[in-house]
Amino acid sequence: MIRRVSFLLVFLAWAATAHASDKVYNAQHATLDNGMQVIVIPVHRTPAVTHMVWYMAGAAEEPQGISGTAHFLEHLLFKGTPRVPAGKFSEIVQRMGGNDNAFTSWDYTAFFQTVPKEKLADVMAMEAERMNDLTPKLSDVYSEKQVVMEERRQNIESDPGALLGERMRQALFPNHPYGRPIIGWMPEMQGLTWVDSLAFYKKWYAPNNAVLVISGDTTLEEVLPLANSTYGQLKREDVPIRARTASPKMDGTVRVTYARPDIREPQWIRMLRVPSVRQDTKSSLSLSLLEDLLGGNTGRLYQDLVVSQKLASNVDAAYSGYAWDDATFTLYATPASGVSLEKLEKAVTEALAKIAAHGFTDDEIKKAVGRMQDSAVYARDSLAGPAMNVGYGIVTGLTLDDIETWPKQLEALSKDDVSGALKKFVISEAGVTGWLLPEEKKR
Amino acid sequence: MIRRVSFLLVFLAWAATAHASDKVYNAQHATLDNGMQVIVIPVHRTPAVTHMVWYMAGAAEEPQGISGTAHFLEHLLFKGTPRVPAGKFSEIVQRMGGNDNAFTSWDYTAFFQTVPKEKLADVMAMEAERMNDLTPKLSDVYSEKQVVMEERRQNIESDPGALLGERMRQALFPNHPYGRPIIGWMPEMQGLTWVDSLAFYKKWYAPNNAVLVISGDTTLEEVLPLANSTYGQLKREDVPIRARTASPKMDGTVRVTYARPDIREPQWIRMLRVPSVRQDTKSSLSLSLLEDLLGGNTGRLYQDLVVSQKLASNVDAAYSGYAWDDATFTLYATPASGVSLEKLEKAVTEALAKIAAHGFTDDEIKKAVGRMQDSAVYARDSLAGPAMNVGYGIVTGLTLDDIETWPKQLEALSKDDVSGALKKFVISEAGVTGWLLPEEKKR
Repeated sequence: MIRRVSFLLVFLAWAATAHASDKVYNAQHATLDNGMQVIVIPVHRTPAVTHMVWYMAGAAEEPQGISGTAHFLEHLLFKGTPRVPAGKFSEIVQRMGGNDNAFTSWDYTAFFQTVPKEKLADVMAMEAERMNDLTPKLSDVYSEKQVVMEERRQNIESDPGALLGERMRQALFPNHPYGRPIIGWMPEMQGLTWVDSLAFYKKWYAPNNAVLVISGDTTLEEVLPLANSTYGQLKREDVPIRARTASPKMDGTVRVTYARPDIREPQWIRMLRVPSVRQDTKSSLSLSLLEDLLGGNTGRLYQDLVVSQKLASNVDAAYSGYAWDDATFTLYATPASGVSLEKLEKAVTEALAKIAAHGFTDDEIKKAVGRMQDSAVYARDSLAGPAMNVGYGIVTGLTLDDIETWPKQLEALSKDDVSGALKKFVISEAGVTGWLLPEEKKR
Repeated sequence: MIRRVSFLLVFLAWAATAHASDKVYNAQHATLDNGMQVIVIPVHRTPAVTHMVWYMAGAAEEPQGISGTAHFLEHLLFKGTPRVPAGKFSEIVQRMGGNDNAFTSWDYTAFFQTVPKEKLADVMAMEAERMNDLTPKLSDVYSEKQVVMEERRQNIESDPGALLGERMRQALFPNHPYGRPIIGWMPEMQGLTWVDSLAFYKKWYAPNNAVLVISGDTTLEEVLPLANSTYGQLKREDVPIRARTASPKMDGTVRVTYARPDIREPQWIRMLRVPSVRQDTKSSLSLSLLEDLLGGNTGRLYQDLVVSQKLASNVDAAYSGYAWDDATFTLYATPASGVSLEKLEKAVTEALAKIAAHGFTDDEIKKAVGRMQDSAVYARDSLAGPAMNVGYGIVTGLTLDDIETWPKQLEALSKDDVSGALKKFVISEAGVTGWLLPEEKKR
């Protein structure tokens, strides 16, 4: 039913009009009387809008024992309200000439539609209705449970890389909901119920726990009357504050090996816990730059390991900075043919040490900042990009100002800030290292 | 205040009078009107008794986020009731010429006193009072929190082996309370409160969720009037059933390495999830035998790796079969001087494969059964042993008959049963392997 975007928290490039203004989006902001935030990012290139509602609740809000409920509920939001029968939501949006989707992460759940601008009022009415008047039939709830279980079978159970990722997160986040999969543990998914989903819905789905973000050919002035006549009609509710369990710091190195015949190519992965944007802005700026400076085809690791040493066929880095609690920084490397993971791991470790020893140049930092600011222009120009990026930031605890000035803030980083973050957060054995091996190789 | 016995679930040898009777303890059983079970094991060697109260609730019953509460509450039970002021409980027992203690595990919490038999009525009255009339001062609660935190610092934080054990359990039991430490995660211990402890106390401490076990110079006939006039005066309460989260099966091999300068000698550990006695009696019988057949100075692994090959200075095996959910089987090996953990691990793996390939002899099995039955005679003869062993069994879901006939049941095992269990449960890479290394050695 729902075409999934991604389970993973993707740190999208930030849209920037850095040369014209210190603000990226020039977003307009208001708050309805019931506490619902409204953010509009005017982009007048095509007569269309992307309309998103973000709930500040995700898999990390699930009570222990019913993992998968947040994501299951996301699916159930397509299962009918008094005016939109089960399965008709997306069909209606498609008849408008638009498309829609939804996604769930640990920290949020979001629903969005991209439609011609004259249809904005209609999708707002539909979205507002499913914010507090969800009426699925129990038979649909039951069949949808089979759907999400099948989704897990296809996307996780049959993918050794995904299973390895779950295993690594489980070890990386002890006693914390980030250590469990968004889609849920299979034995708990079998027990997913309408009762638990409804309790989650009543607890977290409320206008004062939601953020409306619209990007496209409109303005706050146009949106506000529509918002007031739809979402504005819903009552404010008591919503608890997010109470996450504390995750203990655990020393030691943990390595997980998946050796299976159905693994096609070996892969080396190291996942580290690092500060999120919300927790530590300065470190997160450096970590964002490090993602660019290390990973990607122009990155230091790629140049060293793929181009010069020819030990890897690919190397990458990813910083998932939008998180309420700790974020992750992940290094990936695929060995060149005939190179063992043991040798590759040693080479990555040495390459990182070499970079840390020599540091970066001012020019390198400046170019990376420029690249990030420039590439952001593309995101700014897309229809959905601005709403996505602003939404990610707001629901993970940033202010609109944090989001608007982020690319500008990159300029304040020195080369020492960046190599300092490399040494402090990335060169570490405290993370979890994963090996995917094509066959039953013993260590 | 409390002298701790052990955090670990110890699979004590079973006491047996196997040559005289099919029953080990000839325990006497009754149930009070309020649902409290009473078990008496008459042992008339000395005019003394061990009096134990077992609660069918432990660290695994703690709600997510307040780990350490069950153990903290155990401490608080020494902090005063209307008739026994804070800190006086143990003093009173000592003045009787006895001693007392308490311990908490994942599945239970137990309190016991060994006293001259004429003092039995007195300790029963004191124990009954603290079952439902605990009245600690808040200042004592606060200071006791510092005590349990200090206990964690001393027993866990400063012991790399204990930290490694926590790390390994965290990986071995994903999404299950057995994956967290009984004493609690430090960041959560800082938040231990009387409110949470009281809620736990009110929820789980009740006569109908407790088992009174007395071994020593008494009989059920003598005990019952005393039990009725003490515990029998307490009201039955609504106690929830144990609801444990389902733990997903996770493939892949996980290895944890702790390399620190304060580690004195290297050690190799492999922890596996295996059936508990409650879950699978037959497999658990085989696993108990395997503990004897593999570990210890007469065990196969010891003979091979320590005596013949001289690769290890010690090898052992431990089956912790008394568990409500999955149990653990753990292999330990300490390398001989100059032998790397890598080499030792390979040797252990090969030694196990060799044993599995050749199996055991009938004679070997028979001798092992005899050893276990014989050694059990000692436990039977001790004062506390019988009460301990019966208690462990009852609170982890066994019947008195299961417990009484356990050593006799061992006789039904064939050599194929035992080598089958070896292959199925012990020869596996699905567990978690731990390395303790004295210095900062890289793999």
